[in-house]
Amino acid sequence: MIEILVKYNYNMEKHRLIAGKKQGAGFKQLFLRSSFIQKLSIRTVSRVDFRDITAMVEQAVSSSGIRNGACYIFIPHTTAAVTINESADPDVVTDIATHLDTLVPQSRGFRHSEGNSPAHIKASLLGNSEVLLFENGKLVLGTWQGIFLCEFDGPRTRSVLIKIMPEAFAGPESSNKA
Amino acid sequence: MIEILVKYNYNMEKHRLIAGKKQGAGFKQLFLRSSFIQKLSIRTVSRVDFRDITAMVEQAVSSSGIRNGACYIFIPHTTAAVTINESADPDVVTDIATHLDTLVPQSRGFRHSEGNSPAHIKASLLGNSEVLLFENGKLVLGTWQGIFLCEFDGPRTRSVLIKIMPEAFAGPESSNKA
Amino acid sequence: MIEILVKYNYNMEKHRLIAGKKQGAGFKQLFLRSSFIQKLSIRTVSRVDFRDITAMVEQAVSSSGIRNGACYIFIPHTTAAVTINESADPDVVTDIATHLDTLVPQSRGFRHSEGNSPAHIKASLLGNSEVLLFENGKLVLGTWQGIFLCEFDGPRTRSVLIKIMPEAFAGPESSNKA
Repeated sequence: MIEILVKYNYNMEKHRLIAGKKQGAGFKQLFLRSSFIQKLSIRTVSRVDFRDITAMVEQAVSSSGIRNGACYIFIPHTTAAVTINESADPDVVTDIATHLDTLVPQSRGFRHSEGNSPAHIKASLLGNSEVLLFENGKLVLGTWQGIFLCEFDGPRTRSVLIKIMPEAFAGPESSNKA
Repeated sequence: MIEILVKYNYNMEKHRLIAGKKQGAGFKQLFLRSSFIQKLSIRTVSRVDFRDITAMVEQAVSSSGIRNGACYIFIPHTTAAVTINESADPDVVTDIATHLDTLVPQSRGFRHSEGNSPAHIKASLLGNSEVLLFENGKLVLGTWQGIFLCEFDGPRTRSVLIKIMPEAFAGPESSNKA
Repeated sequence: MIEILVKYNYNMEKHRLIAGKKQGAGFKQLFLRSSFIQKLSIRTVSRVDFRDITAMVEQAVSSSGIRNGACYIFIPHTTAAVTINESADPDVVTDIATHLDTLVPQSRGFRHSEGNSPAHIKASLLGNSEVLLFENGKLVLGTWQGIFLCEFDGPRTRSVLIKIMPEAFAGPESSNKA
């Protein structure tokens, strides 16, 4: 059990919060970090294109310097999505993409005049956000899992937003009982 | 780098945590906020009805007074969902709703005796939760994105739960190395 | 308004952070907890099998000792998913599972040689993560909602990862204006 005196230094440019702690006669650094939103740019190369972004998300987590927490992925588009599925055999995402074309064929009549309603429908079916967990600076993924940006109306340059949420302190809950 | 002494005042009624900080001779306010769950009530007007709730979610974020973090949306129903898709042209969500009727037709035989199994199936396909990000008190959404409550068994009055999670402090991770 | 002096004791083994606060002459315990990832093991008994894990998730929340926050569920598999739907009548999830078999039939030709592409496709359609909210140590769920592990390639033993994220303190946002 140690006593600390927290000092804050808020670096607005980096949107990071860094604090030091002072303890008794000694001194030990305590970093209290919060994180900003990181943005990846991904170039897709065909109308339907699943891109493995696992390594980039892992890099975002490890470079944050935060050890434990949750990693949010958000796709700010309406004809692209994000999904987690097998990355070992690329045939798996090919089968997913092909079957989505069967479920939502390009040829059907739709009201939206831009002709890309199937892409909008697929985006809502797969969803545009994910929550991942990480421990000791590493994503917690199953053996076969990879993270895929799902392009349904390419080729385009797409953004993937990533936010690292540190494992939080709980509030002073016991004060409820005081 | 400034020294602070944290003071807590927990207002149970508001479920908000407010703290002041004192610094050397001077004094500067430091607000450490946590947030409660907000509930929207939405009246849907037909069996299938996608309602744009973007403005209401933005209001929940800005009224929280929290600048940066994640915004969770949770639909506490089993025949309604939430999705993010294009809000500029209302034909897009009409196409999504119509195509879901094609994928999960009302006429099929189902075991669940209430006759609304297609609504349950659609709810699981689109999902009942979303994670959004915000910065400087504003939702981070793509140009064309809106947030939609998806009614599949209306008309009814539906609830949308919103929780604003502030960008957190990380724990004293470096103490692992001590 | 009370003054506190925070003391940290980081127990690496438990990955929990516990702090005490001292106030004036008196003394009151203040617990600042962070949480580790909990893992459930679930045995599924058939190829397609929806297992109600609601009670186990509720137990994970209440045993964390954290009162308010978000509960993340993550399935570290590529042929299983998680969904929230009606738990009162078991026919509902049977109808969901049966209709998914109709949408993604086993008999279709797929490229992935293991023969379980339909299971991969269904997993991406339902998704492998959820965000739930809790208040006062209890999950906030609608009247009819239950949480289901969705097995699409069983029988197997599956893992369900759960992380409890406490309601966080916001950063010292007002220091932006200082």
